[in-house]
Amino acid sequence: MTLSLQTCQQMDAQDPLRPLGDLFDLPPGLIYLDGNSLGALPRATAAHIQAVVQQEWGVGLIRSYNTAQWFEQPHILGDRLAPWLGVGAGEVVVTDTTSVNLFKVLSVAMAMAEKDRPGQRVLLSERGNFPTDLYMAESLCAQHGWQLRCVDSAELDAHLSTDVGVLMLTHVHYRTGALWNMGHWSAKAHAVGALAVWDLAHSAGAVPLALKADGADFAVGCGYKYLNGGPGAPAFVWAHPDHVQRAKQPLSGWWGHAQPFAFTPSYAPAAGIGRFLCGSQSVLAMAALACGLDTFERSLPLGGMVALRQKSLALTDVFIELVHTQCAGHGLVLETPREHAQRGSQVSLSTQAGAYAVVQALIERGVMGDFRAGDPSHSEPDIMRFGFTPLYVGFEDVWRAVAHLKQVLDAGIWREPRFAVTHKVT
Amino acid sequence: MTLSLQTCQQMDAQDPLRPLGDLFDLPPGLIYLDGNSLGALPRATAAHIQAVVQQEWGVGLIRSYNTAQWFEQPHILGDRLAPWLGVGAGEVVVTDTTSVNLFKVLSVAMAMAEKDRPGQRVLLSERGNFPTDLYMAESLCAQHGWQLRCVDSAELDAHLSTDVGVLMLTHVHYRTGALWNMGHWSAKAHAVGALAVWDLAHSAGAVPLALKADGADFAVGCGYKYLNGGPGAPAFVWAHPDHVQRAKQPLSGWWGHAQPFAFTPSYAPAAGIGRFLCGSQSVLAMAALACGLDTFERSLPLGGMVALRQKSLALTDVFIELVHTQCAGHGLVLETPREHAQRGSQVSLSTQAGAYAVVQALIERGVMGDFRAGDPSHSEPDIMRFGFTPLYVGFEDVWRAVAHLKQVLDAGIWREPRFAVTHKVT
Repeated sequence: MTLSLQTCQQMDAQDPLRPLGDLFDLPPGLIYLDGNSLGALPRATAAHIQAVVQQEWGVGLIRSYNTAQWFEQPHILGDRLAPWLGVGAGEVVVTDTTSVNLFKVLSVAMAMAEKDRPGQRVLLSERGNFPTDLYMAESLCAQHGWQLRCVDSAELDAHLSTDVGVLMLTHVHYRTGALWNMGHWSAKAHAVGALAVWDLAHSAGAVPLALKADGADFAVGCGYKYLNGGPGAPAFVWAHPDHVQRAKQPLSGWWGHAQPFAFTPSYAPAAGIGRFLCGSQSVLAMAALACGLDTFERSLPLGGMVALRQKSLALTDVFIELVHTQCAGHGLVLETPREHAQRGSQVSLSTQAGAYAVVQALIERGVMGDFRAGDPSHSEPDIMRFGFTPLYVGFEDVWRAVAHLKQVLDAGIWREPRFAVTHKVT
Repeated sequence: MTLSLQTCQQMDAQDPLRPLGDLFDLPPGLIYLDGNSLGALPRATAAHIQAVVQQEWGVGLIRSYNTAQWFEQPHILGDRLAPWLGVGAGEVVVTDTTSVNLFKVLSVAMAMAEKDRPGQRVLLSERGNFPTDLYMAESLCAQHGWQLRCVDSAELDAHLSTDVGVLMLTHVHYRTGALWNMGHWSAKAHAVGALAVWDLAHSAGAVPLALKADGADFAVGCGYKYLNGGPGAPAFVWAHPDHVQRAKQPLSGWWGHAQPFAFTPSYAPAAGIGRFLCGSQSVLAMAALACGLDTFERSLPLGGMVALRQKSLALTDVFIELVHTQCAGHGLVLETPREHAQRGSQVSLSTQAGAYAVVQALIERGVMGDFRAGDPSHSEPDIMRFGFTPLYVGFEDVWRAVAHLKQVLDAGIWREPRFAVTHKVT
């Protein structure tokens, strides 16, 4: 079957989630396939931020810490996020950045491993994991005399041996969009006595999550990608309830204190996940994330994450199929698994040359994906990433995106020297 | 001399900084004396945040990391803040929270001390220091086998012995408003071979700072008090240029990498202060802080920090004098030093009882200060705090505030049982 524009339009017409697109303010004509990097702006965000600035801050001033629950926002947002992670209320807080939260949970996991299994001082991860995860792990391993072992994904099983104390994986790979089986790998970690730490940066809001059912021990993730919380939105952190009372994370700031306003001289951690808080959080940033979560909650009557996942897979299926049929002969390689169970909500393509230029040419045509350079020392190709956010991407968008891609490839314009590689953000 | 309302009105009429009050959006009739806790809303902030939300995020989307310099904001804001700290461009970054930044600089300072003076494993601070500073120090001392020594301020000199590796002080005390002499105490620390770490939470934007001239080694501070950056605004961190190349802070996230977009597997810190960055920062939070810094820069043609300090001292002088003459006989005790050289930009009063109730009664009358409970284990009294932000507080405001205070005290209404102590934020 060749997927025609008309077929895609029919799919849009039959898509029960289609009305959710109106919740977002995207520039007219833009096909935005970069929600895996920065989520689109929810239509309600601007007015909400205005109210927070002008009323809560401007009029309420310091009183708003109480009257507008500024102080409780990390918990309020965490409780709203919890069902999307497959965990309970009171188990998640929204705070700080993914990197800082990873530092907290790795510190705790390594301390637990040292106590329970002193011989297991290896932190195992994937070589191609998102660099900041490896940097934070590198710092902690150096500090605590651990070994950071990074291996190719295919070799993970062979290296998950009884010297491993912590397995740290990013659930959906930022380059390839490949999805780890969380239940399988958490169980594998537990089988050797290791703890499983998951980075959900490209999973939260993108794929169904069941952290507790899948045996995760700790998880962190970010608010600015699929959660539509805005640039640099606060991140989140979850600890399994079985661990939280043992968890003494080193960033022991006053927001994580059992009684922050008692101003006692000694630190006493809060009873629950609140102990993973540290300092004052940006109220504006949290307010924007609240609007991002609103967009997800609007999907609940339409099927919630089950429906979102179904549409996400359909979108990426259509994209893969159309690229296969329309762009044959241009040497594109699919870097994302074809199997649904192994795919997140993005599709990555590599070319032998010119990936950066193709992405730039697409952006000029109003199709926004992004580019990631490969690591030549591990023969990684440069890739083009296309994120498919089921809340606001439609099937006709996919068809038009591939039509543009075909035209760009056919025209060979990326060979022009004006397309020089510069930096881009994850 | 008794200061009359007319005298205060004359002082306002002659105040060259008076026009700066129009830069802020304060509720009509409110006398806001809590800028030491949360700065007032600059009038320009709402529109700027709207533009960032709607244009930079909504239209620019991921491109704004480059076109709107989102990625560079920690440096851009740091460079704007630098002259107010008495340091150079390229020496400060705006990022994370004060607590997290303190963790970074204490980690570095302790590591430097361990290397240079292995026998000096005491971190010396003030017993009444802001609790989060002590909590972070407590965590790091426990981790690295150091002793956290907290002493009364009067005993600091006696305890600054040759076993001290790091002296950590909050430059202006959050309870009393007492100001340490930074040059004196930094030199004292250096004389025993210790490093001087300063928390500027209640100093930045409030008092003149000359970190380099005064021999500071590291400093952190917050953006939401006198800098008017909004609730939970990002904090800042400074390291002396002589130390920065040695400084390997443990929160080694990708924003602190020498080449963040090279996505290399190993961490290599940026050459300068950028190595104190970690993860993605909230663009909205940074945009609000930019508007706060605007208000300071508007004072430059009017004398800048010299003029602001002169007015701040005049405001607190007038307040102290008026309380002394108007509220005599009510048992108020001045907890803030009378000497200009030892005073920040706030005045604290204690009473034998009822401080909380007096503050609540004042708030009901439109005079907003705040309350801090004392630590009974160190015979600390409960206090009322009044912050005097020279950008938007006038002399008539001070007169009216004291008139209300006198009426509240005279009426004795704080004895009513409805004033129960609840939590408040610093």
